[in-house]
Amino acid sequence: MEKTVVRNNYVEELVNLIRSDLDKEELLEQISNYHENDIADALEKLSEDERKKLYPILGAKRISEIFSYLEENTRQYFDELSVESAAKVISLMDSDDAVDVLEHLEDSKRKEIVKKLDGDAVADVRMILSFDDSEIGSCMTTNFVCISNNLTIRQAMSELVKQAGENDNITTIYVMDENKKFFGAIDLKDLIIAREYDKLDDLISHSYPFVYGHEKIEDCIDRIVEYAEDSIPVLSADRFIIGVITSEDIVEMVDDEMGDDYAKLAGLTEEDDLQESVIKSTKKRLPWLIALLFLGMAVSSVVGMFESVVAILPIVICFQSLVLDMAGNVGTQSLAVTIRVLMDENLTGKQKIGLLSKEIKIGLLNGVLLAIMALTFLGVYIHLFKNYGWLNSFMISGCVGAALIVAMVISSMVGTVIPMFFHKIKIDPAVASGPLITTVNDLVAVVTYYGLSMMFLIDIFKIA
Amino acid sequence: MEKTVVRNNYVEELVNLIRSDLDKEELLEQISNYHENDIADALEKLSEDERKKLYPILGAKRISEIFSYLEENTRQYFDELSVESAAKVISLMDSDDAVDVLEHLEDSKRKEIVKKLDGDAVADVRMILSFDDSEIGSCMTTNFVCISNNLTIRQAMSELVKQAGENDNITTIYVMDENKKFFGAIDLKDLIIAREYDKLDDLISHSYPFVYGHEKIEDCIDRIVEYAEDSIPVLSADRFIIGVITSEDIVEMVDDEMGDDYAKLAGLTEEDDLQESVIKSTKKRLPWLIALLFLGMAVSSVVGMFESVVAILPIVICFQSLVLDMAGNVGTQSLAVTIRVLMDENLTGKQKIGLLSKEIKIGLLNGVLLAIMALTFLGVYIHLFKNYGWLNSFMISGCVGAALIVAMVISSMVGTVIPMFFHKIKIDPAVASGPLITTVNDLVAVVTYYGLSMMFLIDIFKIA
Repeated sequence: MEKTVVRNNYVEELVNLIRSDLDKEELLEQISNYHENDIADALEKLSEDERKKLYPILGAKRISEIFSYLEENTRQYFDELSVESAAKVISLMDSDDAVDVLEHLEDSKRKEIVKKLDGDAVADVRMILSFDDSEIGSCMTTNFVCISNNLTIRQAMSELVKQAGENDNITTIYVMDENKKFFGAIDLKDLIIAREYDKLDDLISHSYPFVYGHEKIEDCIDRIVEYAEDSIPVLSADRFIIGVITSEDIVEMVDDEMGDDYAKLAGLTEEDDLQESVIKSTKKRLPWLIALLFLGMAVSSVVGMFESVVAILPIVICFQSLVLDMAGNVGTQSLAVTIRVLMDENLTGKQKIGLLSKEIKIGLLNGVLLAIMALTFLGVYIHLFKNYGWLNSFMISGCVGAALIVAMVISSMVGTVIPMFFHKIKIDPAVASGPLITTVNDLVAVVTYYGLSMMFLIDIFKIA
Repeated sequence: MEKTVVRNNYVEELVNLIRSDLDKEELLEQISNYHENDIADALEKLSEDERKKLYPILGAKRISEIFSYLEENTRQYFDELSVESAAKVISLMDSDDAVDVLEHLEDSKRKEIVKKLDGDAVADVRMILSFDDSEIGSCMTTNFVCISNNLTIRQAMSELVKQAGENDNITTIYVMDENKKFFGAIDLKDLIIAREYDKLDDLISHSYPFVYGHEKIEDCIDRIVEYAEDSIPVLSADRFIIGVITSEDIVEMVDDEMGDDYAKLAGLTEEDDLQESVIKSTKKRLPWLIALLFLGMAVSSVVGMFESVVAILPIVICFQSLVLDMAGNVGTQSLAVTIRVLMDENLTGKQKIGLLSKEIKIGLLNGVLLAIMALTFLGVYIHLFKNYGWLNSFMISGCVGAALIVAMVISSMVGTVIPMFFHKIKIDPAVASGPLITTVNDLVAVVTYYGLSMMFLIDIFKIA
């Protein structure tokens, strides 16, 4: 279709442009028409020599904008710059992007560059680096506009124009009081349409949302998203404005948080990175696997108690994996739903009980439907392929069906209660619930299935 | 800690304020200091009568802003308004919020309200409703600033001030050519710091990213996120600007997309809603469960082929669930990693092979580590509790260990190749891969484990 052609061309066009024999000024003007994200993509298609020729033409400011969009090869491109140029480029970046880039560089290179950063940039970068990765302060940028609360509209406007030269995030203008502490925020739109004789204070939203730098991202991300603002100020403990979280940061954080939860559901301690070493990835996955191995051994010893059933009626082992898998699947579904609900909303006790009763009902309903299918199809299968009589076949498949219903109801319950419990005692339910639920569900399924078989089948088949 | 107290107070303060005996003007002024999101939260704590008293004081414009933040009870609050007021409130909302709200109302109420919407609003709402929920056009707002490309800086600025009164999204100003088609975009910041005699064209980014209204959200969401802009224009097929996607929309879309992927990994067709009926939730979960039931039956019939092993050596069934679970877990981990990687990046063939080989290596490494643990602990366990000699005990646990290694390597491979295959043939790997991988892994594990037992154990134990 048309659209993909149109869009892919940007990068292609850029590469052709850069490889053409335009003089430098002409080339720079042409390149300036393209989006930095596309230029960053175009860099990948160029050879090292072509890039090295391009850098001086672009200049440090432009390079800093383009390099903010790099997703890969950051280290390589910075190695193509001299330490001086690299320091200049990083000084010109948004402080959070600068920190991002620095974290991708080799230790020795990073130290050299940090030494040569200009004064302001160093302070900002140091401050952001001082926050732990799990704290919201580590995601902020120091690139924002801030004015005092005693200006006139005209003064505010000219202060904005002055600060806008250096700071990109101008949609919300932050206001501080005479002690330089956070006082409120002005929507740029309101300032633009204000009349000269309006009072600035009337434009200020005094209850604008904010976060503290040391808050954990997972604790405040939902609140930030809810306010749906273009930016949210980050305050120090004594209420000075130290940075802002922009909507781009919010998109990134939501993506990361969800990615981590997604990873946790699959038993990874955090999201994998494509570039990561095998050893590092192995380490991320091992904890859950070891936990499961030992819990699985516990299940094994319980299965062992039913050896007598199997010795008399080997056919029952055919359907063990079926019952266990189904219980596991239902439990995982309840787990996933519960974790998301717990993450999104503050539930009252009554709502929690409502969720639990709903999950049990769903488990029961699905259990009955699947049990009927299992009863029918397996009964026929056992009769036809395993040479049992019709009655005995349906006795066996009935046992499978009954075990399915019981196991699925209990699994739904377990899949809902366990994450709620971990949530209550402030342990991340996405990490902790998985192994425990798998094991509990396996145990329930094994005991139900072999237990029913023992009760209802053994005597009959012994006599037969 | 201080912070939570400070923040929760907003809603509390508001409720107290509204219940106080301030006169109307004073009350409105005080309320105006609070964020709409907090006011929306405060509404929930009020009684219906209190809300009904509050609405006329707030006025339609303010109500429209507050109601845009509603997450629940939308229908109830609108029922508390007259149809005329409701229509006025909805007319004043951003068009995407208006559509959101309308979708929450009862059919009859919605029809009544739509009849009374003012001219502009109806057209916008109709256009947004004309897009399918999966298309990006359904998420856009028609609230944006657009100027022609032949203005001077001064004209552009005054046009902006004029349009800013009605439109909130002013950070990026869209530019159209003489045919009213999309021409480019201007960063508000550049317009603000421009000098009067600069040329407007120099401010325009001619390669600003855009999307077409009919593009699927899942197809363009990654691209939109990558450009990291405050807003992206949505074009009609003939390149007229019909709306914009704001960064708040992007946050919402990322959250929804990830939530759906998360749900799919757990075998739900899409994310559950807390308010949803049991029947509806059951339907979402049933497809995967039915698929798994039938695939599970296939596995059962394969297990059936090994009845002879079990009849001679019932102890082997103890460890069936262990081997199956471990293979399943490893497969799910590879699946989760592969889906995320496929979602985030455009992989070359070489990178895909790299990922596959990495996953296999991780599977092998984890397999060997876990096999050693299983060999040791299970050997001791079988000797002590199942009364087998040391040699025989370790023969059995050795079989479990060997099966673990083989099953885990193959599961890693399967967990990587199957989602890649579905991705290649343009089927959502998150939905399709789950059941298939579970089944394939079960089969592999069963065949490996019982196969090894058959080959190495049966003859020995028969003789013994």
